[in-house]
Amino acid sequence: MTSSQLFEQIRKKKSYLCVGLDTDITKIPKHLLSSDDPVFEFNKQIIDATHAYCVAYKPNIAFYEALGPKGWESLQKTLNYIPKDIFTIADAKRGDIGNTSALYARAFFEQMNFDSITVAPYMGEDSVKPFLQFQNKWVILLAHTSNSGSADFQLIESKVTGRKLYEEVLLKSQEWGTKDQIMYVVGATQSEKFKEIRDIAPEHFFLVPGYGVQGGDLQTVSKYGMNRTCGLLVNAARSIIYASNDHDFASAAKKESISVQQQMEQYLDLYLK
Amino acid sequence: MTSSQLFEQIRKKKSYLCVGLDTDITKIPKHLLSSDDPVFEFNKQIIDATHAYCVAYKPNIAFYEALGPKGWESLQKTLNYIPKDIFTIADAKRGDIGNTSALYARAFFEQMNFDSITVAPYMGEDSVKPFLQFQNKWVILLAHTSNSGSADFQLIESKVTGRKLYEEVLLKSQEWGTKDQIMYVVGATQSEKFKEIRDIAPEHFFLVPGYGVQGGDLQTVSKYGMNRTCGLLVNAARSIIYASNDHDFASAAKKESISVQQQMEQYLDLYLK
Repeated sequence: MTSSQLFEQIRKKKSYLCVGLDTDITKIPKHLLSSDDPVFEFNKQIIDATHAYCVAYKPNIAFYEALGPKGWESLQKTLNYIPKDIFTIADAKRGDIGNTSALYARAFFEQMNFDSITVAPYMGEDSVKPFLQFQNKWVILLAHTSNSGSADFQLIESKVTGRKLYEEVLLKSQEWGTKDQIMYVVGATQSEKFKEIRDIAPEHFFLVPGYGVQGGDLQTVSKYGMNRTCGLLVNAARSIIYASNDHDFASAAKKESISVQQQMEQYLDLYLK
Repeated sequence: MTSSQLFEQIRKKKSYLCVGLDTDITKIPKHLLSSDDPVFEFNKQIIDATHAYCVAYKPNIAFYEALGPKGWESLQKTLNYIPKDIFTIADAKRGDIGNTSALYARAFFEQMNFDSITVAPYMGEDSVKPFLQFQNKWVILLAHTSNSGSADFQLIESKVTGRKLYEEVLLKSQEWGTKDQIMYVVGATQSEKFKEIRDIAPEHFFLVPGYGVQGGDLQTVSKYGMNRTCGLLVNAARSIIYASNDHDFASAAKKESISVQQQMEQYLDLYLK
C-alpha cells in the first residue's frame, strides 16, 4: 500500500484508527477456548465488528510467539482474514545485522504478507536498510516510545548537536529512505512533544501507541501531529478488544471503535491541514 | 545455568566458544534437503561434531522465523537436542513495553527453554525488566554491536555526562539486575574498546559476535576482555557451520571448532585473571 492509498482509506472511513490485535489467550472470553483456534476465532470476530471503522490492524507478534508454532498459524490466518484495503503492521520491533535483518524482512514481507513492520533503531543503518528493499512495504522505526523507560536513553542529548537521541533517530533515518517507506513510532503519552517532532518529520506518518489504557490524549496528538495527509495512525488495543470479556466482546469492540472513529472524524475536520 | 556453572564449563572444556546456529536453508549442503527437516538435520550433525569444543549455542531466531511455523519446530527440536550442560542463547534482540516483553520472555523461557535471550535496550528499563523475572535465566543486552551501523547512535556522547550511548546503556542497566542475570553484547570488531568497556562492567559476561566472517580479532578481545571468570562468550557462526558446503560439512565444522578452542585454551592460560 502506498501513502496516497492509505490517505484515501483515511478519508473514506473518516478514521485513522489502528486496532491492535494483542490477543492474549489468557484474556479472551472463556467460551472461545473450545474452538479449534481460539485466538483466530477471537480475531475474526473482532475484525468483522471493527473493520468498517479502522484503517489498520496491528498484531503484536509477541502474543503469537508466546504460543509457539500454533501461534504463528493463528497469526497467518488472521493476516489472511484482514480485508485487503486495510493496512497491516507486524509489531515485531525487529533489528539485527544486515543479513539477519534481511531474513526478518523475508519472514514478515514474503513468508507472511504484512504491509509494514516496526523496527528498533539501536544498531543503526545497516540493521534497518534491508527492510527498505521491498516495494510498497514500510519500516516503522521506533523514535519516542510510549512507555516510562523511553526516558532512559531516548532523551539523552548529544554533546555535539544538542539534539535528543530520538531526534537523532528521526533525522538520520531520513537519509535511509523516503516518507513513502518510513514511518515513526511516537507514543501518545508524548503528546506535548508532537509539535517539535512534527517539525523534524513534517511529511512522515506516525504510528501512535499509548492511547487508551496507557493514557495518551487523542486531541493533543491530533492537533499537533496531523499533517496534509493526516500522517497519523493512532493505535488502540486493549480498550477496544477487551472492552468486554463476555459473549458480547465483538459488539463491545465495535461500539468502542465507533466512538473513537467519531472523535477522529471531528479531528480530521478540525486539524487536517 | 548460573555464572559459576558457566565458568565451570569454560574451565572444563578450555573454551569460551559459542557456535552460532544461523542455519540458512538456502546455504546448507544440498544433500540434506531430502530429509524431513533439513534445518534440524544440519543442526544435529553440527552439534554432534562441535559440542565437545564449545560452551554455548546461539541460534539466531530470524533464520527460523523466515521459515514460518516449520522453522519454529526446527528450532524447538534443535534446542531439545543440545546437551543440557551447554548454555543456550536465543539471539532474538527482542524488547517492547512491559506486558509485551513479558510475553517474549514467556515464549523463550517457558514455551522454549532457552537459558538466555538477547534484548535491545532502546525502550529502557520497563522493556527489559520483565525478562529479568526468571530464575537462572539471563538477559544479554545490546551494548556496542559489531556492525557498521553501531556508529550511528551508539557513539553519541551525552551533553550531561560526556559518556557515549552504549556506555550509558552499560551503566544504567546495572541498576536493573545483577552480573548473574545480565550479559552484554560487545562486538569483536570493537576490540580496541574492550579495555574501557571492561572497566565499566568488570564482572559481567560479554557475548562477543563479529569474530570470523565479520573480522574481529580474538587475541585482542581475549586480552582486554577476559576477567576472573573468563567473562567472554565469543561467537562464531558462518566460519564454523559453513566451513564446508559438502558432505563433510560436520567434520569441517569440527575441525574449525577445534582450531578456535585451541587458541582459546592458550588465551585462558595467558589472560585468565
